[in-house]
Amino acid sequence: MIDRTHEARRTSWVASAQGHADFPLQNLPLGVFSTPRDRRPRPGVAIGDEVLDLSALALSGLLDTALADAAPLLTADTLNPLLAQPASVRLALRHALFDLLADDAPHRARVAEMLSAASHVTLHLPARIGDYTDFYAGIHHALNVGRQFRPDQPLLPNYKWVPIGYHGRASSIVVSGTPVVRPNGQRRAPGQDTAAPDAGPSRRLDYELELGIWMGPGSSLGTPVPIAQAEAHIAGLCLLNDWSARDLQAWEYQPLGPFLAKNFATSISPWIVTTEALAPFRMRQPARPEGDPAPLPYLWDADDQAHGAFDLELDVYLSTPAMRARGAAAHRLARGHASHLYWTVAQLLAHHTVNGCNLQAGDLLGTGTISTPTPEGLGSLLELSEGGRRPVDLGEGETRTFLEDGDEVIMRARARRDGFASIGLGEVRGIVQPAPSLHVPLS
Amino acid sequence: MIDRTHEARRTSWVASAQGHADFPLQNLPLGVFSTPRDRRPRPGVAIGDEVLDLSALALSGLLDTALADAAPLLTADTLNPLLAQPASVRLALRHALFDLLADDAPHRARVAEMLSAASHVTLHLPARIGDYTDFYAGIHHALNVGRQFRPDQPLLPNYKWVPIGYHGRASSIVVSGTPVVRPNGQRRAPGQDTAAPDAGPSRRLDYELELGIWMGPGSSLGTPVPIAQAEAHIAGLCLLNDWSARDLQAWEYQPLGPFLAKNFATSISPWIVTTEALAPFRMRQPARPEGDPAPLPYLWDADDQAHGAFDLELDVYLSTPAMRARGAAAHRLARGHASHLYWTVAQLLAHHTVNGCNLQAGDLLGTGTISTPTPEGLGSLLELSEGGRRPVDLGEGETRTFLEDGDEVIMRARARRDGFASIGLGEVRGIVQPAPSLHVPLS
Repeated sequence: MIDRTHEARRTSWVASAQGHADFPLQNLPLGVFSTPRDRRPRPGVAIGDEVLDLSALALSGLLDTALADAAPLLTADTLNPLLAQPASVRLALRHALFDLLADDAPHRARVAEMLSAASHVTLHLPARIGDYTDFYAGIHHALNVGRQFRPDQPLLPNYKWVPIGYHGRASSIVVSGTPVVRPNGQRRAPGQDTAAPDAGPSRRLDYELELGIWMGPGSSLGTPVPIAQAEAHIAGLCLLNDWSARDLQAWEYQPLGPFLAKNFATSISPWIVTTEALAPFRMRQPARPEGDPAPLPYLWDADDQAHGAFDLELDVYLSTPAMRARGAAAHRLARGHASHLYWTVAQLLAHHTVNGCNLQAGDLLGTGTISTPTPEGLGSLLELSEGGRRPVDLGEGETRTFLEDGDEVIMRARARRDGFASIGLGEVRGIVQPAPSLHVPLS
Repeated sequence: MIDRTHEARRTSWVASAQGHADFPLQNLPLGVFSTPRDRRPRPGVAIGDEVLDLSALALSGLLDTALADAAPLLTADTLNPLLAQPASVRLALRHALFDLLADDAPHRARVAEMLSAASHVTLHLPARIGDYTDFYAGIHHALNVGRQFRPDQPLLPNYKWVPIGYHGRASSIVVSGTPVVRPNGQRRAPGQDTAAPDAGPSRRLDYELELGIWMGPGSSLGTPVPIAQAEAHIAGLCLLNDWSARDLQAWEYQPLGPFLAKNFATSISPWIVTTEALAPFRMRQPARPEGDPAPLPYLWDADDQAHGAFDLELDVYLSTPAMRARGAAAHRLARGHASHLYWTVAQLLAHHTVNGCNLQAGDLLGTGTISTPTPEGLGSLLELSEGGRRPVDLGEGETRTFLEDGDEVIMRARARRDGFASIGLGEVRGIVQPAPSLHVPLS
């Protein structure tokens, strides 16, 4: 059911919102920002090229009396208190914001005073992330990587039964725009399978295109979340770049999985695009290929199959120092789509909790790298360069197998549907900085 | 250098502290507690069978003026603010507590009013754990488990180069005494390598004997901690039971490592036994066997090799419902020792940060399961029962291969050295409760 705030013809008195690539009136994503004049991080909502101060709004008396209880949640320094509320609170806030920002809104002058130009604000992580879990639900990525590591068995026997996932590092999740320092670690060059490793900067630094899933209300330790109730625990989506050091990963990952190859940085887009905003862009989960096993009962829900996927187009761009020097736009490396996930978000969440593991508001899940079955939408350089064997042509004589210092990776996502205003997730970007030396004392 | 607070002959006016198995005057471990009369969680220190209220002490004016700045840290609801301080602050607090609790202390009557019987307090997690990392540094455990999964190659080629570790779940870390619900999950019986899995309660529930390492002051993203500075980031130790569902683990762990097999619960002892208290019980890191590679330079420090290990005896006990019904004491399953770790704590920490991963005060590291090379100190039932093939005799006709509902696992640790008072880490205990049904809707 699509509520009134999706009416595509409604426009905002915030001029930049009209036809905005990401943040028209119909999106209203939640984030945390600060300004040069008020450095306290506080909740905000993106509207066009502006950010509306939700803490000021909460204190203004302009919010519905229905939202009076929510006002304290909007003055916190993270969105965790708001994320802990049921979807009905987010929806009430969405309705109130729509009514205040639509063309025919009252109180325009007062609300306008609560706007800051997005170009002048600092965006922070929207929530304190208690735990970060990264899944592996992009089946074409799993196949592509598996072919490189295990040509005889690209997909392990558990893949189509178990939504494979592992715990990532919460402390090193950074907001879009934060520079990413190339990691040092133990390396063995490919083919040197019996040589001793050395320690130094990763030579095979990569990105991974993923969606991030923000947890809303948590769950209790010892109590599985049934799949039919899983959506009630999901607050919204963001973009996620799971930076990966492939040489460190290949050497360290057995038997307990990736560790230093991943935990040096994970970048996310700053805005939580809510499940309410994304409601028109849900789609049927693509049918499993003939012969794939049916999901076990705890992973199966007919409604979820009918509406569980996201109709989101996903782009990855690379901007090199040479491109910037000549004033060239970033080069698009891939255009993919979120429907290439083998499991729905509800399935990921039902699996995560089937053993009683508890979730908390503000936890973050990554979907795993999303790649297309065909070459146009591969979600990592490992795939695009076929493990470093085929350099990727960037034009003007530039190529890449893996990321070089100064390279900037940019990811974007857009949802489109006839009869609805297009919305986007915004972007996540990060520029690679050189590794520090390991040979002199540091800090 | 051992400071004055280790003098073995000094005793406390708290009578139960004399000869206390864990908490004589020389220990003074830090925790968070509440009482029926004052339910606010607040810092405390264990002394004999009593708990001293540090928040009351901070407000009393009895602490040194040197500790005036630390007073606000002692009234927080977690130890995170105190853990973020350098070791000098912990040491000043230790000296002040020693002077207030030793036999010749002034203000005894006033301090006595700040004591609560340990049997009447509730102990909480001592800190908000931002990230939890579990290592795999117990080489005999790695060998024993490797022999079961990979008889031809029990130890993978990276083991003696890389301090293997992975990220665990922070939200499901629970304090000693919290019941542990048996996890549901996907299972395939051993030998059924081609059968479809089903979902249900784990049939191979196990414990793992580990030490937990509490992080003191954190480190910055992008900046490795040199091994010579690693100890400055370590606040103290606890006991850690890394509950493990072996059937879930065997099926899910490739290629990204353990997930649901571990994240349903991790139990820790409630007291942080500080590195200051443990100073007399440091020992030389056992020499690497002939032929093992030398650690890479970032993992090598001569001082750390000379003092980096811990002289701690580790015990695991099992109490079954039948034992409790007949009033029998718990059965000791293993007596091990912390010196069977292949890497020192400083090596673990230098490795964790070599790629720039940041640490935060209150983070927790697990050492990995600690087993002896001989059968008397195996740290898991998987090892004791040889993968479930050889039931462990508990006496009185009882045996176990894996844990049954109602079983309680208890771990203890003790440090002894001539000329010093023995101290202990306290205990971690947890009782197994039945799995919830997956066949009816659960909220």
